[in-house]
Amino acid sequence: MSNKKLLNYADYLKLETILNSQDLKSAERGTPAHDEMLFIIIHQVYELWFKQVLHELDSVLDVFGQDSVDESNVSLAVSRLDRIIEIQKVLIDQIRILETMTAMDFLEFRDDLFPSSGFQSAQFRVLENKLGLQPNERINYGNQDYKNPLLESGKQVVKKAESEKSLFDLLETWLERTPFLSFEGFNFWERYSDAVRSMLQKEDETIKNNPNHSVEEIEYHLKEHDRAVDSFEAMINPDKHNELIEKKKKRLSHKATQAALLIFLYRDEPILHSPYNLLSRLMDVDELFTTWRQRHALMVRRMIGAKIGTGGSSGHAYLQKTADRHKVFGELADLSTFFIPRSALPELPKNIKRNLGYFFNR
Amino acid sequence: MSNKKLLNYADYLKLETILNSQDLKSAERGTPAHDEMLFIIIHQVYELWFKQVLHELDSVLDVFGQDSVDESNVSLAVSRLDRIIEIQKVLIDQIRILETMTAMDFLEFRDDLFPSSGFQSAQFRVLENKLGLQPNERINYGNQDYKNPLLESGKQVVKKAESEKSLFDLLETWLERTPFLSFEGFNFWERYSDAVRSMLQKEDETIKNNPNHSVEEIEYHLKEHDRAVDSFEAMINPDKHNELIEKKKKRLSHKATQAALLIFLYRDEPILHSPYNLLSRLMDVDELFTTWRQRHALMVRRMIGAKIGTGGSSGHAYLQKTADRHKVFGELADLSTFFIPRSALPELPKNIKRNLGYFFNR
Amino acid sequence: MSNKKLLNYADYLKLETILNSQDLKSAERGTPAHDEMLFIIIHQVYELWFKQVLHELDSVLDVFGQDSVDESNVSLAVSRLDRIIEIQKVLIDQIRILETMTAMDFLEFRDDLFPSSGFQSAQFRVLENKLGLQPNERINYGNQDYKNPLLESGKQVVKKAESEKSLFDLLETWLERTPFLSFEGFNFWERYSDAVRSMLQKEDETIKNNPNHSVEEIEYHLKEHDRAVDSFEAMINPDKHNELIEKKKKRLSHKATQAALLIFLYRDEPILHSPYNLLSRLMDVDELFTTWRQRHALMVRRMIGAKIGTGGSSGHAYLQKTADRHKVFGELADLSTFFIPRSALPELPKNIKRNLGYFFNR
Amino acid sequence: MSNKKLLNYADYLKLETILNSQDLKSAERGTPAHDEMLFIIIHQVYELWFKQVLHELDSVLDVFGQDSVDESNVSLAVSRLDRIIEIQKVLIDQIRILETMTAMDFLEFRDDLFPSSGFQSAQFRVLENKLGLQPNERINYGNQDYKNPLLESGKQVVKKAESEKSLFDLLETWLERTPFLSFEGFNFWERYSDAVRSMLQKEDETIKNNPNHSVEEIEYHLKEHDRAVDSFEAMINPDKHNELIEKKKKRLSHKATQAALLIFLYRDEPILHSPYNLLSRLMDVDELFTTWRQRHALMVRRMIGAKIGTGGSSGHAYLQKTADRHKVFGELADLSTFFIPRSALPELPKNIKRNLGYFFNR
Repeated sequence: MSNKKLLNYADYLKLETILNSQDLKSAERGTPAHDEMLFIIIHQVYELWFKQVLHELDSVLDVFGQDSVDESNVSLAVSRLDRIIEIQKVLIDQIRILETMTAMDFLEFRDDLFPSSGFQSAQFRVLENKLGLQPNERINYGNQDYKNPLLESGKQVVKKAESEKSLFDLLETWLERTPFLSFEGFNFWERYSDAVRSMLQKEDETIKNNPNHSVEEIEYHLKEHDRAVDSFEAMINPDKHNELIEKKKKRLSHKATQAALLIFLYRDEPILHSPYNLLSRLMDVDELFTTWRQRHALMVRRMIGAKIGTGGSSGHAYLQKTADRHKVFGELADLSTFFIPRSALPELPKNIKRNLGYFFNR
Repeated sequence: MSNKKLLNYADYLKLETILNSQDLKSAERGTPAHDEMLFIIIHQVYELWFKQVLHELDSVLDVFGQDSVDESNVSLAVSRLDRIIEIQKVLIDQIRILETMTAMDFLEFRDDLFPSSGFQSAQFRVLENKLGLQPNERINYGNQDYKNPLLESGKQVVKKAESEKSLFDLLETWLERTPFLSFEGFNFWERYSDAVRSMLQKEDETIKNNPNHSVEEIEYHLKEHDRAVDSFEAMINPDKHNELIEKKKKRLSHKATQAALLIFLYRDEPILHSPYNLLSRLMDVDELFTTWRQRHALMVRRMIGAKIGTGGSSGHAYLQKTADRHKVFGELADLSTFFIPRSALPELPKNIKRNLGYFFNR
Repeated sequence: MSNKKLLNYADYLKLETILNSQDLKSAERGTPAHDEMLFIIIHQVYELWFKQVLHELDSVLDVFGQDSVDESNVSLAVSRLDRIIEIQKVLIDQIRILETMTAMDFLEFRDDLFPSSGFQSAQFRVLENKLGLQPNERINYGNQDYKNPLLESGKQVVKKAESEKSLFDLLETWLERTPFLSFEGFNFWERYSDAVRSMLQKEDETIKNNPNHSVEEIEYHLKEHDRAVDSFEAMINPDKHNELIEKKKKRLSHKATQAALLIFLYRDEPILHSPYNLLSRLMDVDELFTTWRQRHALMVRRMIGAKIGTGGSSGHAYLQKTADRHKVFGELADLSTFFIPRSALPELPKNIKRNLGYFFNR
Repeated sequence: MSNKKLLNYADYLKLETILNSQDLKSAERGTPAHDEMLFIIIHQVYELWFKQVLHELDSVLDVFGQDSVDESNVSLAVSRLDRIIEIQKVLIDQIRILETMTAMDFLEFRDDLFPSSGFQSAQFRVLENKLGLQPNERINYGNQDYKNPLLESGKQVVKKAESEKSLFDLLETWLERTPFLSFEGFNFWERYSDAVRSMLQKEDETIKNNPNHSVEEIEYHLKEHDRAVDSFEAMINPDKHNELIEKKKKRLSHKATQAALLIFLYRDEPILHSPYNLLSRLMDVDELFTTWRQRHALMVRRMIGAKIGTGGSSGHAYLQKTADRHKVFGELADLSTFFIPRSALPELPKNIKRNLGYFFNR
């Protein structure tokens, strides 16, 4: 201790640097706008949190990038996703801070920002790619690539993230090979299909007999219901599933989809606790980004109305579209279509059940 | 005090009644589902809060239903809206409680609920009507009226709310006659139009010269921009505005729209503080209901996937549509399109400025 | 379906009853106070949530009241506590709704409430008792029993909860007998003590050598440190621990304390995931009630200042004291005093480690 | 535009610098601790928000540092405080992010931080001083000045803030000279005193006749009540008030206290809207810092138990004490002790009432 300089909070956190990195563009014109400070600081805070989210996401990718994934690492991945989720909640809530800036206050420095824009956040693009958003799924303007507005250094890291396996990819591979879901010698799918078909049959009758509905509505709902039935047959039949994948109506492979469904259905078995939590957290992450985009779109509408954004985009309409479309794990949420009550679930044979439990209770 | 029974907390709150109003349908079948209790209680809590929101909303309607609205009552209305807003935040946040119920847990009692559904909440329909949602703006199923699924008593109150003046109506009337915005002898609109047109011209150039954009994008944004220009001309020209109203592209009258814009632009003048806060809170209320619907739609997707809802609806897709469309005060948010920086704003003549101030400072 | 009346949302939730249970006392005097509605409704909402918390807590008590606790039931208990936690967050956040009522507005009906008071919430007393708050730990006024202000029916249920095993009691018993922590043939405590003593020795030096501290401060911290050392010796030595229990300085038995520590230290082992989550959630529940009491105390100070409460209590000072003292699982939080880095932790022998894993990976 | 480099988001926000300012101390030892990244980033985020809070606070100090404070600037100050409040809510909520780091995870790098500590945050000390926390009110360790652990540069700015007028000071001066509260020719205090004394008399009887209370409790509450009576007499009588100031039981001057009370009582008058909002927000800011300290203390207890902090302090006990004591605007909250219902309030003479209204309505 004697021969090294004592660590100080301010040095450790590089506060000298961090707290002197706010240069108001409006001040360069000689008329500093009070609210530009907030605008800079909240965006810096967003970027710091994005760095943290990437730090956690990378460690999750590490876990699932291994040839064989230790079950206790799945639980580690869950705790990392828990942290991402808490950060996302703050990302959403702190929009309220930015909303204390009114449209009139923003106008005092808005023109100074042109043509920079949040579309130039390389970290956010990397994040989307690492989660598994595909370049061809993105909503773009005109024919322009989403990487165009980025600085050269940003383009490089985003491109790199495009080329690497995403969390979606790694999850799919992991689900496809989960060995404890082999259920050898137990005809699970036949018995489960019977249960689901009988449930779907009941739904069909429910729709037809709904006393509150008109003929038109009943027809409308029957059509929707038929889609659910088709979708279920694809769950059972790999060929139908692959057809849907080809038509870009599904993305997750048949085998992985089946494994995910099993995890949801038998989540009470000890060895499935962490896998269930994992799928559950991935849906949370997806939904929280959707909520963040939706809140962002609402704020922008109020801030600039139908004006164009500082980056030249048409503002909130675009943001709302990305909220609707930029989803990665939606297929997991859709699986609930095929859930049946525990009581109707095929009971697992004793030897399989033991396989899914703790060694101590053997 | 001696001759009346002492008041007790439990009696005051009628806890004996309130806390014995949870009858599990699943229990009637002999298999009580643990999570049905949560389902009942959270919906009862929602309805209690709806009652409170209606209590506050009614008092706001009272304020603006008067022939002449005292300015200090506007400030009372703002504090009532503040309370509604805090309630709305809780309505959104408590979705997290319901999300602790998993899709599998819901299935244990879901069939018992058929065909009852949240669409049968009379209070929520009354609330929408009192805010100003118009029957013909509603997204309906088939040809069915949204009141059909309600009990007879519910239908009556909802119908009554349809026939009364809504907050939208009363606000419009109040805006149309705000006497302190007469600006007699001051050619405001001409000077303001010049400032806006020069801003719009600048935007036009910004779009054309954006080095990050392709030809297609520039065209796309120019088209959007032209819409903004048209929209501005309607702001100045009552005939154009009325055309848009006839085409159902606008709803708020020309005079009221101009008054709202003036309140936004000159909100720093003392007498406009409360009116500004009022408009601002109305946008908050609108946005928070949108957020509530969006969160609700996400939750339902995860809970039932593509299954039909207990009321026979096709679930989350419908809810998402209402989030996009069931807005009442969106035109206020759009006004920011026409904001210009304070520095470009026509300065008010001294006598008008005094008119908008406190008596004490005369 | 044909022979039973169709279920309706309003009937299912008994809305007719629930929404007609708000009788304003101020209205009986002929001068209804607008804000009394909020006062009644928010308290009814609190009581509904308390009922839900008790519903979840009872199911947790059921799990741990069994002679042998199935490990997968521990995971069920955790999910029930998760729900309690989400409810607690809303209980805290909705204080903001009540804070929209100002002190002046409260005065309009405050005298009408006398002498009823939140102290008369039987459900909250039952809740405290079921968690494990002991009657003799409670902060009382004068010599009065905390049950005195309750209605007779309330007294009965609170008394019953006093006499039953609390969650604290059941947790203690469960911890004492956790079979998978026997560690036979592995001298854990000796090796762990060495590691802790060396850590404590290092802390001792750290204090003595702190260049930022004066002599007085160093003495002060050394005294604190000595207490930590004593506390650690009690962790190792059952006799010392029992002494502290007799002096009311500790409550959790020596054996249970050791088991809890082991769960914290080896929480990465699969079979300890749920037990770790359990302890962690219990600390959360405790802390959230503390936060709720603290926020409540702050609100009351602002609402009535130094006035007496409607129940005759001296208001916020009392509430603040209960926040400081009414804790049940604080000893779990204190265990972190004895945590050491994973790297310094005695490695578990292979056979013990296997015992704590999944059967599948044997 | 052509002759200047186009602004880019990453350059504008200095992301290259900001995102490369996280150097893990544990990495220097060759064993990077995953969670140290979170520890660094969340503290950097806290410091960025502190900078923003100081930016807003400085502008509020500017407003009240003027020789004559324009009423419309009071409303500006309120909107700046609104922003501080939204930031404080995020400061509190983001503790949940840090709580995803467990005590064991913290141990992996805790020793690397010695002896740096949050006590070395110069910005937070400046913030406390600018609000008005007095050096002699601070809870210190031993005889050490709270500035000692700071870097030299930090000491300088904190010292400067000590020597300048705080918000408390400026508020006091502003309250003392509020011209619109002169009430000349209207014997306000006599009539108000009568109303309060009659209210206090009623409280006295309420206590004596409480059927739920024992003799001891009644005595206890009477003693508390007498303190309220004394406190009220000091409100009326400047000499008694000054005595309390000398005994350090009060801080705000008699004249300022009276002005604050008037603002609370007549807040419905237009010219008092902003002053009322101001006082109200100052109580919010105070309470939110208290809540932040309380939550911080709870978190630290769980993270390190009775261990000493990295800065050598005895951790959570100290933090809890600062939560109880480091308050600046508590005297404003206490004023509610002397509120009386609107109906009992002396009615203002017409000419005074007009003085407090808008010019337009004269």
